[in-house]
Amino acid sequence: MRVGILTGGGDCPGLNAVIRAVVRVGRARFGHEHVGIRRGWRGLLENETVPLDARAVSGILHRGGTILGTSRTNPYTREGGPETCVATIRALGLDALVAIGGEDTLGVALRLHEEFGIGVVGVPKTIDNDLSGTDYTFGFSTAVQIATDAIDRLHTTAESHDRVMIVEVMGRHVGWIATHAGIAGGADAILIPERPMSVDSVCETIMARHRMGKDFSIIVVSEGFELEGGGGEVEVDEFGHKRLAELGVGHRLAQLVRERTGFDTRVTVLGHVQRGGTPNARDRVLATGFGAHAAKLVEQRRFGRMTSLRGDTITDVPISEAVAELKRVPPERYALAVPFFE
Amino acid sequence: MRVGILTGGGDCPGLNAVIRAVVRVGRARFGHEHVGIRRGWRGLLENETVPLDARAVSGILHRGGTILGTSRTNPYTREGGPETCVATIRALGLDALVAIGGEDTLGVALRLHEEFGIGVVGVPKTIDNDLSGTDYTFGFSTAVQIATDAIDRLHTTAESHDRVMIVEVMGRHVGWIATHAGIAGGADAILIPERPMSVDSVCETIMARHRMGKDFSIIVVSEGFELEGGGGEVEVDEFGHKRLAELGVGHRLAQLVRERTGFDTRVTVLGHVQRGGTPNARDRVLATGFGAHAAKLVEQRRFGRMTSLRGDTITDVPISEAVAELKRVPPERYALAVPFFE
Amino acid sequence: MRVGILTGGGDCPGLNAVIRAVVRVGRARFGHEHVGIRRGWRGLLENETVPLDARAVSGILHRGGTILGTSRTNPYTREGGPETCVATIRALGLDALVAIGGEDTLGVALRLHEEFGIGVVGVPKTIDNDLSGTDYTFGFSTAVQIATDAIDRLHTTAESHDRVMIVEVMGRHVGWIATHAGIAGGADAILIPERPMSVDSVCETIMARHRMGKDFSIIVVSEGFELEGGGGEVEVDEFGHKRLAELGVGHRLAQLVRERTGFDTRVTVLGHVQRGGTPNARDRVLATGFGAHAAKLVEQRRFGRMTSLRGDTITDVPISEAVAELKRVPPERYALAVPFFE
Amino acid sequence: MRVGILTGGGDCPGLNAVIRAVVRVGRARFGHEHVGIRRGWRGLLENETVPLDARAVSGILHRGGTILGTSRTNPYTREGGPETCVATIRALGLDALVAIGGEDTLGVALRLHEEFGIGVVGVPKTIDNDLSGTDYTFGFSTAVQIATDAIDRLHTTAESHDRVMIVEVMGRHVGWIATHAGIAGGADAILIPERPMSVDSVCETIMARHRMGKDFSIIVVSEGFELEGGGGEVEVDEFGHKRLAELGVGHRLAQLVRERTGFDTRVTVLGHVQRGGTPNARDRVLATGFGAHAAKLVEQRRFGRMTSLRGDTITDVPISEAVAELKRVPPERYALAVPFFE
Repeated sequence: MRVGILTGGGDCPGLNAVIRAVVRVGRARFGHEHVGIRRGWRGLLENETVPLDARAVSGILHRGGTILGTSRTNPYTREGGPETCVATIRALGLDALVAIGGEDTLGVALRLHEEFGIGVVGVPKTIDNDLSGTDYTFGFSTAVQIATDAIDRLHTTAESHDRVMIVEVMGRHVGWIATHAGIAGGADAILIPERPMSVDSVCETIMARHRMGKDFSIIVVSEGFELEGGGGEVEVDEFGHKRLAELGVGHRLAQLVRERTGFDTRVTVLGHVQRGGTPNARDRVLATGFGAHAAKLVEQRRFGRMTSLRGDTITDVPISEAVAELKRVPPERYALAVPFFE
Repeated sequence: MRVGILTGGGDCPGLNAVIRAVVRVGRARFGHEHVGIRRGWRGLLENETVPLDARAVSGILHRGGTILGTSRTNPYTREGGPETCVATIRALGLDALVAIGGEDTLGVALRLHEEFGIGVVGVPKTIDNDLSGTDYTFGFSTAVQIATDAIDRLHTTAESHDRVMIVEVMGRHVGWIATHAGIAGGADAILIPERPMSVDSVCETIMARHRMGKDFSIIVVSEGFELEGGGGEVEVDEFGHKRLAELGVGHRLAQLVRERTGFDTRVTVLGHVQRGGTPNARDRVLATGFGAHAAKLVEQRRFGRMTSLRGDTITDVPISEAVAELKRVPPERYALAVPFFE
Repeated sequence: MRVGILTGGGDCPGLNAVIRAVVRVGRARFGHEHVGIRRGWRGLLENETVPLDARAVSGILHRGGTILGTSRTNPYTREGGPETCVATIRALGLDALVAIGGEDTLGVALRLHEEFGIGVVGVPKTIDNDLSGTDYTFGFSTAVQIATDAIDRLHTTAESHDRVMIVEVMGRHVGWIATHAGIAGGADAILIPERPMSVDSVCETIMARHRMGKDFSIIVVSEGFELEGGGGEVEVDEFGHKRLAELGVGHRLAQLVRERTGFDTRVTVLGHVQRGGTPNARDRVLATGFGAHAAKLVEQRRFGRMTSLRGDTITDVPISEAVAELKRVPPERYALAVPFFE
Repeated sequence: MRVGILTGGGDCPGLNAVIRAVVRVGRARFGHEHVGIRRGWRGLLENETVPLDARAVSGILHRGGTILGTSRTNPYTREGGPETCVATIRALGLDALVAIGGEDTLGVALRLHEEFGIGVVGVPKTIDNDLSGTDYTFGFSTAVQIATDAIDRLHTTAESHDRVMIVEVMGRHVGWIATHAGIAGGADAILIPERPMSVDSVCETIMARHRMGKDFSIIVVSEGFELEGGGGEVEVDEFGHKRLAELGVGHRLAQLVRERTGFDTRVTVLGHVQRGGTPNARDRVLATGFGAHAAKLVEQRRFGRMTSLRGDTITDVPISEAVAELKRVPPERYALAVPFFE
């Protein structure tokens, strides 16, 4: 079989490990040949490909990013986009297409499968861990580790100066990274989109610690957490508009905490550091498992499905499961953090 | 309730995170008081304890080792040992005892529960990940990461010199660390106790790579892997006896590979570096979850049970499950590594 | 002799290693006794001290922050402040005072020495490496490493997405961290306070790379770099005032680069992560050397002097040298980075 | 000018950074062209080369090892070896040769320069930091950091178990790595080739700590340290010969310490992990400086010289200086460690 591979959406540690496993297992076990599609769906729209043989995937296991490049291009937003993709797939002689990406990328893959009969296999990818259909996705563990390392570093500086340190981490819709990094880093409060929490209650935690003789606190906040009551909102005028949009929730929360507690309050926004660089061991193993399983799904022509981690087992589910619903942090997980700051 | 806590057996990253969670959750949720028992069961035999309040567990989440100390003392190997332990438990006024340890420690806990009615709760601990009754134990992920970091470093030196690098990792009876670190590090062969493999087949892998133009190889071997046929055995004379016992399987394998392939072959024995130092984020979250759940088991007087990870859920099982059988690397997990060197 | 020790100004990896060395060398070699002054000069104003014996400094070598706490309190800005400090020093029976800090802290120490005859010894501290009188200060190497690790991670994400990544690092008046991290991380442009550079020339570098087929760039900028021509200035209105002040040079530069090149441009502001956490090996050795030398200066009553690294040798200079002039990045050092993006 | 580049001897973090800087600075500043010689002098004997243009050195700054490969081949040990090298150099049309290596590699370069008039420029390389003519060499700082990280990890396990941990680090003739890592890691004793020390005095340190209530110790030993009195010598018989040679000083010392103190004593031999993998920031900056300076020496035809770090300045010295004498750890450096265990 001749198999195309593409990566779409934001990058994530472990993408190269998936690509390597699809190629190596596909070749060694099933005699597959592979074609690399450049920059996600854009590569199919523009017919941009790269060879993907044993040599191409040698030495990439530990490398961050994706050797195929990526983009957020969605063919369904372009006139004739899907048809162009299908034409390219046929021109390339592909029997199957492995699409590694998030909700958007997998959604396109599913439609190409359902509407045009393309033999797609999905591999779920999200640094935020917000995809249903799998317990975890690769990249998440690495992101949590990077955030935890930062919190560890901030602890010593917070202690030495009697400061409140606010750490804004990734998580647009859900608080997985904040929750895990907050537990691992021993944060004093964790603010996530799933759980409304008033700024006053955060300030109360800080003051309660103060009364116990602890004059520093670490607050972890997901970028997608919504501050209540409009407090801390940035005033946007007609000229400053674009610039101010960059002031994320971390900075706005800091302003409020500073005003209400009087504590010296500093912000760290980790940003893209969380999604770059070498994947940790766990993400390499998971990504390798996903890639190997994807090759098997291709061989078995079990199309329309995506790889999935269930407990300690790698299995597969219909792609539709992944895109059905956002996976939120369950209360019992979040509760692990709560006794430590309640 | 008044709760004793002890750590037994080899140390492991995450022990302090467990202790901290038992104390914090026990105090905040259930009003428990805690007593620290020093050096495992020895502390009960010799009545050596330390206070364990909020202050004692502050700032220990990220620290390796155990603030309680540990030992391999087994009261059942001493005349009157169990009775002394029980007497100390009663003298200390303990309503429950949380025992954090491996097969041996948990085995003692279970007997004290069954024979003397002591209210024990177990928390499984094994760097080797060889305990049944739980999918994973804390410390394992950190050990795999340390071994993977070492393999990453060895890769560059192997490549530059056309060398065979052998990395001996922990795993006396099972090959979990070797398998995961081998997959994550992209090893060219992985030798584990569960799977006999001849030295000749290892050499054949090395030579096959050589024929493909790759003049270096990385071999990961569990310390408990048995070399077949007595080859590479160390000659032990009456004087050299004790000294030679330190020559582990890595060194003996290197000798054989060197002789049979002619390749410059070097050995790294990671040793105790794998079990020391700060736990990674995943192990801190898991250890915190185990500690919190142990506090709950105490409160509910569900004695004779130990905490357990099943899938992504923290639950509990009878202690007897953990000590029943060695948990081996399943063939499908090992197979993840195989296509890459078969 | 009875010796007081204090740490002032911002914290910095290695402070505890200095404290430990002053105490251990002072005790073992010279029979000194030590008193810890809490939170810099504030501890002398408010007579807040802690015992500082062998036990107090055990296990702190690798810990970030400062066990003594720190503050930016300057007694010379308070009515009667210096006299209060002197009175406390006498009441504590101190024969000497080791002041570990930056320009401000050392300046106070020098005045107390000159005006009141207090036996002070200085240890220079600045994460920015901007103090004259010493080639390097501890903490700088660790900060450079942290910034370099971040750049390494951002490289993979920049490559995968065809992005411009801007990294804002510490350096209010000088560009040492930006220059060293930029060289070490292979940045495509480095902007430092010492060297005016137009945004247009930065954009030209980015476009030149684009013409060579490289659609990503990494720009490192010191927080103290001044953007020319008012471009990218934040409009500050009467309400938004305080909030906008947090928008540092990185965000403002990103806005301009985005507008002028059309490239997707992202910002990472490392902030306090750079000054927290465990010092690297080099900083521990340097801090230990400074502490040991400070103890010797105390014993020899060579007051008014501070420790200094010259080449590979630890020596001492008058405190006045440190506070005389800002140490700037010399052109030949910066030139190391230039060929790589000229 | 047309410039050949080769790397000889053991690999070392930073080699690729040197190669990259020689090529980039040589091209951008001076219009040089470059030829990569494979595997040190062997590449000249066997005329094995690789192209070395801008593309070849892109993305290698942070990679360990050497993209050129290396070997210990010395042309002067072969009949007609030097003449073959010279013939290859002429056939390749090289105007200059940059030789990156240790005493052996630089010695060959010097002889080719003196005996045949080849335009060589040297760049000193030694993980052990034992070359005269330069304060430090790249790779050393990374090796010290790796050893320090290991000591940090071993500390927690030593403490938890009341153990003596022996760490054997690189250093065949000198103790630079042991001294710096020992100071940085807070070792309780440091054994280096430059300073004879009896096993009894090591044991006395351990027992003195025991009397002070500290039941664990960390001992760092250079691989080249000679145990006095033949104690701990391995009995070598005619069959066991080769195998036993692998039992380094760490294992033999452990045997003696165990026998004399009765403490549980464990050994970690870090081995090649110390020389592989990504260079730290400091080594990348130093290696880049060396490479840039080597390009300049080539342009100025200042042959027979090698790059050198003096204080904080990169300069150059005659190659003969480097190979004249072993650079030993000066007593005042070692003394930094002494108060902590005397």
